[in-house]
Amino acid sequence: MREERMDILIRGGTLLSMGDSSDPVEDPLIGIKNGVIAFIEKGDRTPDGGEAGELIDASGSLILPGLINTHTHLPMVCFRGMADDLPLMEWLQNHIFPAEAKYVNKEMVYHSSMLAMAEMMLSGTTTFCDGYFFESAIARAAIEAGMRAVVCQGFIDFPTADNPDPAKNCETAERFVRQWRGVSERVTPALFCHAPYTCSPATLVGIKEIARHEEVLYLTHLSETITEVRDIKDRYGRTPVHHLHELGVLDEKTVAVHCVWIDDEEIDVIADCGVKVSHTPESNMKLATGGAPIPALLERGVVVGLGTDGCASNNDLDLFSEMGTAARLHKLECLDPTVMNARETLEMATMGGARVLGLEHEIGSIEPGKRADIILVDRRKPHLTPLYNAYSHLVYAASGSDVTTVIIDGKVVVRDRHMRTMNIDNVMERVRKIAGAIRRDREG
Amino acid sequence: MREERMDILIRGGTLLSMGDSSDPVEDPLIGIKNGVIAFIEKGDRTPDGGEAGELIDASGSLILPGLINTHTHLPMVCFRGMADDLPLMEWLQNHIFPAEAKYVNKEMVYHSSMLAMAEMMLSGTTTFCDGYFFESAIARAAIEAGMRAVVCQGFIDFPTADNPDPAKNCETAERFVRQWRGVSERVTPALFCHAPYTCSPATLVGIKEIARHEEVLYLTHLSETITEVRDIKDRYGRTPVHHLHELGVLDEKTVAVHCVWIDDEEIDVIADCGVKVSHTPESNMKLATGGAPIPALLERGVVVGLGTDGCASNNDLDLFSEMGTAARLHKLECLDPTVMNARETLEMATMGGARVLGLEHEIGSIEPGKRADIILVDRRKPHLTPLYNAYSHLVYAASGSDVTTVIIDGKVVVRDRHMRTMNIDNVMERVRKIAGAIRRDREG
Repeated sequence: MREERMDILIRGGTLLSMGDSSDPVEDPLIGIKNGVIAFIEKGDRTPDGGEAGELIDASGSLILPGLINTHTHLPMVCFRGMADDLPLMEWLQNHIFPAEAKYVNKEMVYHSSMLAMAEMMLSGTTTFCDGYFFESAIARAAIEAGMRAVVCQGFIDFPTADNPDPAKNCETAERFVRQWRGVSERVTPALFCHAPYTCSPATLVGIKEIARHEEVLYLTHLSETITEVRDIKDRYGRTPVHHLHELGVLDEKTVAVHCVWIDDEEIDVIADCGVKVSHTPESNMKLATGGAPIPALLERGVVVGLGTDGCASNNDLDLFSEMGTAARLHKLECLDPTVMNARETLEMATMGGARVLGLEHEIGSIEPGKRADIILVDRRKPHLTPLYNAYSHLVYAASGSDVTTVIIDGKVVVRDRHMRTMNIDNVMERVRKIAGAIRRDREG
Repeated sequence: MREERMDILIRGGTLLSMGDSSDPVEDPLIGIKNGVIAFIEKGDRTPDGGEAGELIDASGSLILPGLINTHTHLPMVCFRGMADDLPLMEWLQNHIFPAEAKYVNKEMVYHSSMLAMAEMMLSGTTTFCDGYFFESAIARAAIEAGMRAVVCQGFIDFPTADNPDPAKNCETAERFVRQWRGVSERVTPALFCHAPYTCSPATLVGIKEIARHEEVLYLTHLSETITEVRDIKDRYGRTPVHHLHELGVLDEKTVAVHCVWIDDEEIDVIADCGVKVSHTPESNMKLATGGAPIPALLERGVVVGLGTDGCASNNDLDLFSEMGTAARLHKLECLDPTVMNARETLEMATMGGARVLGLEHEIGSIEPGKRADIILVDRRKPHLTPLYNAYSHLVYAASGSDVTTVIIDGKVVVRDRHMRTMNIDNVMERVRKIAGAIRRDREG
């Protein structure tokens, strides 16, 4: 009999650990102590509630690692549905950029991020990687909401509300990383150069030097549109991937977001440099930027994670629907129903995401010694009945609303779809007020 | 003051009638009597519950017509997730066809259809068009469950469990239509020739003659795969669309399902004949059959509705995710973010579906005189906050689980996500038992 009292015990259900062990495991008993998965046993004994701070009955549930969103811009939930179905440049230049210039401030970022985190946790996401303005406000919101976050200070070669002097980009980068390193077990700082078409070679290289020195992740949007590829070719005589490679910023701590317009030679460069890729299928489809060659990247051994992108181009943060879209999209693109099978797709949203963010030793699977980021999906629903294959259900039939319970870093943040870390009605009301003013302003 | 007592009054919320009137309408008052929408007023007065059999407070909800699923094979929910991610022919010939031959019977069809109807109603679908074996069992289930249905007797040139002698196809067709005509306001019989590659010209023409004589819809899968197009060309010297046109079976009461591999000339034939199209994007993607040229069909004025297809190739019956997929897929296929905008996509799932099924004078929009098929979507959720554009939310951010209340033919079948017309736990348990036997059999 185990002596130590657990903080949380999860009993029953079906465990998809997504680790090396052979899944699925029926009726497991999972012990969590001090934020860490202490043990996983076959649940032969039936502990009573007294053996743990909280006992979670997982009967009828699938138990899996929390999903990992490797690319988003959380505060853009405030612009959800504000402008859709428009030509890309009109959407960006006449709607998104002006709205950002006018309405983005520290308060909007904080409240919108709280709303976004509620949405993410309620749909089974436990970790996100965000790049936006006022990223410190997002870090604070993550600490308060109980989420795990990689928060990326963004850089671009023109003045922004939170960084009025681009000449001081490198100082800002260093300050941001040092400000947030070690503040919370759950928050990791990183640096995000917006894109090769908005950042000069000096910015791209300068920020990468800080990232290397501080040993943090370096991210950039890369080869999202055919226009970007043409622009960069015109300016620098080579494609975006080759341009960044030439500048020496591609390595194992670089995350390239999108990678839609890349050819086989560029896939080789990405693979050889150990660059990680964040794949955002719903955004790529909605903005009509193109279908990324993800099966070819996987074939070459590139680590790929899933991302929702911001809510102006998705328009939700639900990684379940993102998984379904990813699995279906690449079957269509390859005209081959065997690519991106269900298990592989779920891996992309769990261990794949963890590897993209360099957190594979902490999260991404349910194994003893890892941080306890765990979600429960209720499978006793008509659309998840009957069950032959749990992976298939999670990718092709489940939606975020089937998540009942969410544990992050050993804390229960959602139980039976009730959020424990914030008052959701208040959070929605704050964002409604901000959006109401935006709507009146745009109509007026 | 209105004298007549209504069966149902819906008060408050935001009405998207999808009719000719200018949507959206805030705070409507909708009266329903004898299955029909009696009136729609601005909700200035505040009636008490005494004025109606049931008063529905729609505050915080979007009120829209029930969604219409123009193509499905309901009993296949019993095979949901049984076989995925396989080459098309292996999937069909080694898994689906053998499973159908072995496990499909009247009882399996009835119980599986009840489960499928629960799933559909709980995700906002009020009408479906189904083609399968033992279709009479599906008609009976629809009557019991309270759904609106077009039930299609299927035809194919080999013996099946419910039609052992294909030589008697025409008699069977006539008998089926006469059996089900007039039985229920909610059930319409129709005839479904499986496909040009499984039905001889004699079958295709013979069944169409019965359909014309009985004045019912005639459906067929058409140009789903490139293999089908090649086969038909080899056999008959022309593509499937031209083949059917030559046979004289294409007219305004013909519904062509899929239409993936069709060229501009075939689009002209479809348009000129007034053929309706059922579009099944998630199935087309998951089976990797291809992306149908829906924007081109719409451009030519062809009436298009949405369908989920069966659960072996989707794997759910949620038309909300189907709308999101349709809108995104065609943007990607056309590399143009303006195609299939949110309003147009919602139209496809409502009035478009009604027109495909020839029911546009009864359902598809919320207008006085039409049958009352109405759903409520709760928008007070993080992923639907804030709200700028209701169409955008319904297509790009909502999922079936946001539906709270469903009215079909003036009866409340779902209220606050509680099903009134069946015991859902019993229904799930019945299908679990059937599937359990299938699983053991397949594993043994």
